[in-house]
Amino acid sequence: MRRSPNRDAARQTSHPARPIRKPGVQPPSHSPHARHRPRSAGSRRPPASPWGCRRGAVGGSGAGIKRRDGGRGRPSPLLLAMLRLLLLLLLGAAGALPAPRRRRAAVPPPAPYLTRYLRQQIDHFGFDENLTFQQRYLVADQYWKKDNGPILFYTGNEGDITWFCNNTGFMWDVAEELNAMLVFAEHRYYGESLPFGNESFSDSKHLNYLTSEQALADFAVLIEYLKTTIAGARYSPVIAIGGSYGGMLAAWFRMKYPHVVVGALAASAPIWQFGDLVPCGTYFSVVTNDFKTSGTGCSESIRNSWNAINHLSSTDAGLQWLSSTFHLCSPLKNHQDAAILKNWLSETWINLAMVNYPYKADFLQPLPAWPIKEVCKFLKDPGLSDKLLLQNVFQAVNLYYNYSGEASCLDMSETATKNLGQLGWYYQACTEMVMPMCTDGVNDMFEPQKWDFDALSEECYRLWGVRPRPSWILSVYGGKNISSHSNIVFSNGGLDPWSAGGVTKNITDSLVAIVIPDGAHHLDLRSRNPADPKSVQQARALEICYMKQWIEKARRSH
Amino acid sequence: MRRSPNRDAARQTSHPARPIRKPGVQPPSHSPHARHRPRSAGSRRPPASPWGCRRGAVGGSGAGIKRRDGGRGRPSPLLLAMLRLLLLLLLGAAGALPAPRRRRAAVPPPAPYLTRYLRQQIDHFGFDENLTFQQRYLVADQYWKKDNGPILFYTGNEGDITWFCNNTGFMWDVAEELNAMLVFAEHRYYGESLPFGNESFSDSKHLNYLTSEQALADFAVLIEYLKTTIAGARYSPVIAIGGSYGGMLAAWFRMKYPHVVVGALAASAPIWQFGDLVPCGTYFSVVTNDFKTSGTGCSESIRNSWNAINHLSSTDAGLQWLSSTFHLCSPLKNHQDAAILKNWLSETWINLAMVNYPYKADFLQPLPAWPIKEVCKFLKDPGLSDKLLLQNVFQAVNLYYNYSGEASCLDMSETATKNLGQLGWYYQACTEMVMPMCTDGVNDMFEPQKWDFDALSEECYRLWGVRPRPSWILSVYGGKNISSHSNIVFSNGGLDPWSAGGVTKNITDSLVAIVIPDGAHHLDLRSRNPADPKSVQQARALEICYMKQWIEKARRSH
Repeated sequence: MRRSPNRDAARQTSHPARPIRKPGVQPPSHSPHARHRPRSAGSRRPPASPWGCRRGAVGGSGAGIKRRDGGRGRPSPLLLAMLRLLLLLLLGAAGALPAPRRRRAAVPPPAPYLTRYLRQQIDHFGFDENLTFQQRYLVADQYWKKDNGPILFYTGNEGDITWFCNNTGFMWDVAEELNAMLVFAEHRYYGESLPFGNESFSDSKHLNYLTSEQALADFAVLIEYLKTTIAGARYSPVIAIGGSYGGMLAAWFRMKYPHVVVGALAASAPIWQFGDLVPCGTYFSVVTNDFKTSGTGCSESIRNSWNAINHLSSTDAGLQWLSSTFHLCSPLKNHQDAAILKNWLSETWINLAMVNYPYKADFLQPLPAWPIKEVCKFLKDPGLSDKLLLQNVFQAVNLYYNYSGEASCLDMSETATKNLGQLGWYYQACTEMVMPMCTDGVNDMFEPQKWDFDALSEECYRLWGVRPRPSWILSVYGGKNISSHSNIVFSNGGLDPWSAGGVTKNITDSLVAIVIPDGAHHLDLRSRNPADPKSVQQARALEICYMKQWIEKARRSH
Repeated sequence: MRRSPNRDAARQTSHPARPIRKPGVQPPSHSPHARHRPRSAGSRRPPASPWGCRRGAVGGSGAGIKRRDGGRGRPSPLLLAMLRLLLLLLLGAAGALPAPRRRRAAVPPPAPYLTRYLRQQIDHFGFDENLTFQQRYLVADQYWKKDNGPILFYTGNEGDITWFCNNTGFMWDVAEELNAMLVFAEHRYYGESLPFGNESFSDSKHLNYLTSEQALADFAVLIEYLKTTIAGARYSPVIAIGGSYGGMLAAWFRMKYPHVVVGALAASAPIWQFGDLVPCGTYFSVVTNDFKTSGTGCSESIRNSWNAINHLSSTDAGLQWLSSTFHLCSPLKNHQDAAILKNWLSETWINLAMVNYPYKADFLQPLPAWPIKEVCKFLKDPGLSDKLLLQNVFQAVNLYYNYSGEASCLDMSETATKNLGQLGWYYQACTEMVMPMCTDGVNDMFEPQKWDFDALSEECYRLWGVRPRPSWILSVYGGKNISSHSNIVFSNGGLDPWSAGGVTKNITDSLVAIVIPDGAHHLDLRSRNPADPKSVQQARALEICYMKQWIEKARRSH
């Protein structure tokens, strides 16, 4: 089993301030200095009564996370297929990517933060092993009002926390308005926060402490530590913010530790993509709908492409033609390779659905604004012959993988950022995070594939020596029966496939759903952009309004 | 290290109905058949509006759990001293004891229940070990209304569940009125629910899964299992009920799993006896107050007794005199033995405070009504000489240990029922359940002893190889910051020392405190008795009213 590619964790000292890039693409009109640039949030917010936040676009249902599949060697073809169904969360991958290759002129300057480490129990829930590890977290307090000003706490998900910090512009955008300190907490087993250093992924014994419950306990202990050690923070109200799996963590954090956080913003958080809470096929039908509405014949062309590949891959000549037509770096040799090609294409369509943003951006690959619309320009005629159809499909994926025109061949093992911890999420998907997914080829544009828990279980046992427990998340976090909780905003993108498992309707007055019809995967957590649709502007304004409510109420109650 | 004295756990089959004794002493006027006898609860309950429960005696502050110290060989003298401060919870020991030696004539007949077993994960929070064990639980459904009638769920604490079942008469008394099913769930590592059978206590590795969090997860999984397997129970509202540590579990269960239980009755639950939430000395000052108010010179006599023992134990002749005067089965040999004598006496006074009930009952030993008042009849003159004073102290403890007059000598290792799992609670007190306790000899009648966490930690490490984590319970359950939760009634006995760490004032409209001024340790959970003070009758009526509210609200919302 491969060792984690991440650097060794446990560092004892805290790091000095170092620069980061502000997330997303900033409009040229903004001052280059984040802390001094004019804040436009106030003017965008609709007027609201002190205790009532006016709704923006709420209702409807949505669609956009990116799959963190794999295809990078380790998992077997069977697991790859399972992973397609599992739709491993690529939280934040949809948000933006690190080190964009093609930077725009008006990139914002670095905003300072401090890198810190806190010694945490490896096992909060058992006392036999009293081992500890260093959890990394980032702190930016330049906007913080020292007299118990609020803390916006990013509940880190499955990746390097600096990457999430760089790609959650919303928090940076609102820090000054809320006089808030920003804290970004790294999730154990990701980035530098490796409980057993390079051994963290060596076997199921070392992986045993990679659970959402342990991560939430880390967050709770960290916040208590901050409140007792930072002068003036004793009564700071803390708000949890996260996207995708991080959004699930933010919501669950408020549910399980309401004494620690006064509220939570759970962006694109599919907390209901478990058990039989939602139909297993909705996710893919949202992806399909994104393509269907972005161009005539588009989804139909993709639906027809699978059989075309099946026909061609039945002969050696056909495999050769496919390898050549798709400019594959490694030619297809057999039927199994053809299955990998189909998985890779599926992933590409899903990735596009999650990053279908309204402005040009540098993601996994540089992409134009509304990339699905661009892709669909190649996929107008589903009735073409197999070869003509697949030549068009190539043009479409080439836009995703080779928009710069610099690639000499396409590599099927390259789909997602390296900032996400693949191994860790594979393990989580094999234990707690069992998200049933399926396709039928009718309500979606994919090849039919049923949800097969037993096959997943076998594969997980083969890979990790563990068995998934599909009902545990429902038992511990309550499934749909969460109405006794409070102060959680669930935001969803209408274009985001993960909205299929999200909370898209209000549950109570303080468990509020927001749907951003034109939004892909947690668009609202990205930096403001002149091309932002009005729906995301309204959503952010509403989110800020709720956060102010929670802060004000906390202030009055202590 | 001693193996658990409990029987081997894992049984696969469910047991047929078998008789149990109803708890407590029943008045002769009651029909001998529990299921047919007239229920008088209704007439005792004050009229209440459908959505407002009228308060009985609420306010004030209280006093009574029994220490589950030890003195039974295993723990070292140092641990014994620590345990005195830890005040290991003897939940339910105060409630009544098994197999009373002197039974009254009108003992109620057996009420039937079924014994069942559910296969549970040994580790709910990790996936490396996929081991399971059989959790025992008891079900009585003779009063249950099958069409989603409520379930009263006893959150088992540190002992054999049949013993708690037999000693929680309140649940049996209200079952018919509420049309409720009764379920008594055994706490893992106690009774028959031993995760590793006879090996469960063999070392810290096997004990690693003995935590409140794992126990709550067991309860949640069990309730879901019941709701999906018992016809007509799918939408049954479930109410958690528990006393002492079981009361803490009931409250925490509602806090952490509000999707599973609609409310909780937490009787004599010292959820704040942690960290610095309450002064460490209050517990002992409540004990002291019980003696002070039960007879002139009583607490002062006990306060003076320690020095008298110290004087006498400094010579061999004095030790001999003490052994003879106290009719000890094992004579005192040295200064250390004298310390054990003092611990044993302290325990006796604490036990008396917890079982200071208003009617004659058979507990650890048979006792008269208001036993402290009886004991204090021997302790009127604190100014006597050492020997005369200690002769009186002997008369007092002799009443507790030898009320029947049958004992030929007094055994200092005998203080509590064998139905409580000593080893398990020792371990819990050495890990999560770190309850600071102290005495000063001024505000209490005990020898001064400071809270010494470091000494406890060393002793725990020596005994179990584990270190206590005193702040964890606060982190995970919120300490005093619990106002965002709902539907919990905290009942407290004014005579109960554990009220020192209890919630004795309302927090919100639905986090309600009840104080029963004349009540010892969870008197309200005991069977109705003609000698019950009005305050406990009112408390029970209020508790029933709240339970009806929760049930009604749940019924309307599904």
